Amino acid sequence: MKVIILGGDGYLGWPTAMRFSSRGDDVCIVDNYLRRKISKETNSTPLFNTPELIERVKTFKEVSGKDIRVVIGDCKDYTFLLDLFVDFEPDVIIHYAEQPSAPYSMIDYSTAALTMENNLGSTLSLLWAVINGAPNCHIIKLGTMGEYGTPNIDIEEGWLDVNHNNRTHKFLYPRQAGSMYHTSKIMDTDLIWFYVRTNKLKVTDLMQGPVYGFETTETKLHSNLNTSFNYDDIFGTVLNRFITQAVAGVPLTVYGKGGQTRGFINIIDTIKCIELTADSPPALGELRIFNQFTETFSVNELAEKVQRVGKLINLTIDIVTLKNPRMEAEEHYYNVANSGLNNLGLKPNLLTDEALLSMIEKVMVHKDRIDKDKIFPRVSW
Amino acid sequence: MKVIILGGDGYLGWPTAMRFSSRGDDVCIVDNYLRRKISKETNSTPLFNTPELIERVKTFKEVSGKDIRVVIGDCKDYTFLLDLFVDFEPDVIIHYAEQPSAPYSMIDYSTAALTMENNLGSTLSLLWAVINGAPNCHIIKLGTMGEYGTPNIDIEEGWLDVNHNNRTHKFLYPRQAGSMYHTSKIMDTDLIWFYVRTNKLKVTDLMQGPVYGFETTETKLHSNLNTSFNYDDIFGTVLNRFITQAVAGVPLTVYGKGGQTRGFINIIDTIKCIELTADSPPALGELRIFNQFTETFSVNELAEKVQRVGKLINLTIDIVTLKNPRMEAEEHYYNVANSGLNNLGLKPNLLTDEALLSMIEKVMVHKDRIDKDKIFPRVSW
Repeated sequence: MKVIILGGDGYLGWPTAMRFSSRGDDVCIVDNYLRRKISKETNSTPLFNTPELIERVKTFKEVSGKDIRVVIGDCKDYTFLLDLFVDFEPDVIIHYAEQPSAPYSMIDYSTAALTMENNLGSTLSLLWAVINGAPNCHIIKLGTMGEYGTPNIDIEEGWLDVNHNNRTHKFLYPRQAGSMYHTSKIMDTDLIWFYVRTNKLKVTDLMQGPVYGFETTETKLHSNLNTSFNYDDIFGTVLNRFITQAVAGVPLTVYGKGGQTRGFINIIDTIKCIELTADSPPALGELRIFNQFTETFSVNELAEKVQRVGKLINLTIDIVTLKNPRMEAEEHYYNVANSGLNNLGLKPNLLTDEALLSMIEKVMVHKDRIDKDKIFPRVSW
Repeated sequence: MKVIILGGDGYLGWPTAMRFSSRGDDVCIVDNYLRRKISKETNSTPLFNTPELIERVKTFKEVSGKDIRVVIGDCKDYTFLLDLFVDFEPDVIIHYAEQPSAPYSMIDYSTAALTMENNLGSTLSLLWAVINGAPNCHIIKLGTMGEYGTPNIDIEEGWLDVNHNNRTHKFLYPRQAGSMYHTSKIMDTDLIWFYVRTNKLKVTDLMQGPVYGFETTETKLHSNLNTSFNYDDIFGTVLNRFITQAVAGVPLTVYGKGGQTRGFINIIDTIKCIELTADSPPALGELRIFNQFTETFSVNELAEKVQRVGKLINLTIDIVTLKNPRMEAEEHYYNVANSGLNNLGLKPNLLTDEALLSMIEKVMVHKDRIDKDKIFPRVSW
């Protein structure tokens, strides 16, 4: 299979690229290093050293014998993508090329505008480059569970049959998000669904929950192959932050009441979900949507879990409550469907004590590199 | 009241500006002439001569004694809007500054991108300039009934109470549109609703149906004060096109089966709706949504109406069916709520035979200027 990975330098993009290449697929990475630029600007460097793509790919070739093609370029640039698609003839395009930070999107006008322009700009260019250059190609788009927000009814998998005044209609599940970043993903979904209907594209939209972890089969092969593990307030997801706080000996910082519940997923399962999705494409004209997470936890449950597991290796871990820097429901109903990927064959790697302990121990190796000042929230809304 | 009208050079913007000015409100128009530029590029000039704003405003001053301020600038430019809002201190901002043509948005990548970048770019800049420069100001946004599409259930006014598995939640009414232009309006709504919640803005979103007509109290005062009446396939709405075809002696062109049903509104009522909305603002933190139309017709009903009324003045009018250039349902359920604006005091001007006859007669005055080649669809999807 010929696979293009847009945003292939990222936390998920890079391990995804190595996985498909390891399987024997022909992989091409596209990235413009936007996330690295924003990381620098916001002083949010990852815990591990992560070389740029040319060096990573060279190391990967040395340890695996496999070639990954790298193209540095901007996915907002339609003609650039079109030329690439015509040349490479992808069977699958995996679209990670988005500004991924909710706090970053909430700093000011310019970060909101960058988020909107980058995320929607890259999605629109991708859709048109597929329409004109690779119309039978399967687009795998990373959405987010955050698109749904926390409504007071069950969250279904992408779609909702609405009964109203004795008539029914199947709609995209109504979406309402908690940050400009998450709102840009809702707008992505609107855009994708329009072009799927109008131009008979073949798209899977994966509504992903917060991802934790940093090791996959391939990242373990060489330290140059690490993925970018962020523990800061801008790019770090909650469990990755908690683990780093535990190791650094600072209190775990719960935002508000801590009843915020989300669907989480191990990075290993994220990559597996992408593989399963790529191997079972939808039909032309179908927008298939899966909710991509394996278990739900409240923030309090996560904090207590880290505290309890840390104690097993004699870490003393405090939990403190911060005034919530985000506008969000701190206690809410949350019941979410996620059978689609299980039906495709996902065997979840759950957040067992062993899994958590293993992550804590691996972060401990890099304890000296942790900058405690980066963990506390700098952006409020 | 201090009123800023973004897109004040347009079909609706200009008559709106004159109306508020006539009432004694202090009016400032902002426009960058984007629509004029696109009109030229697509060979879609309006039926009447429409001078640029400086000349229109000069004439309006001569006939009414009232001053309207004109600022030529791009509403995508956040600092430009911010400076203007801080200087002018508007009570109301009316946002028409969007690329308004569905066919234009469907030509190719570049027109789709222009539509998305202009419409979302101006909306995002507006929201942030209000947040930082005029936080108590009432934003009146022109949405479109096209955002709803044609679902198989009743269309409510902006919101929908969904019952699902014995729980309920009130959502934005789920939207699914028929063109990239209409999709950009859905994305506008997502964006606006996010910032209304997060920054406690005060917004009315008017879901407007296709507008017909071209005369208001003020446009009649002088030929320089005409609004831009478009009858072409790019900017002309269906009834305006039919009237022009009837006058030109060419058949009325129904797209497909002609069962496409929409909510229509006279331009006089559109302007009145804006007045009523401005005079009764919502609360801070409220997104109020009205469906802005007065009656529903199918395309066939409109064509037959024009044919019958034309016969009264001895016009022989044929109706022909064209292969539908649009992807849309040609027969569908359509039952739409629209009580909000009536409750504010709207007294609809309906499409009576007299009203239709009057429009036909006024277009006849300009019969020599009609270019028949502009009426037929040039864009398909």
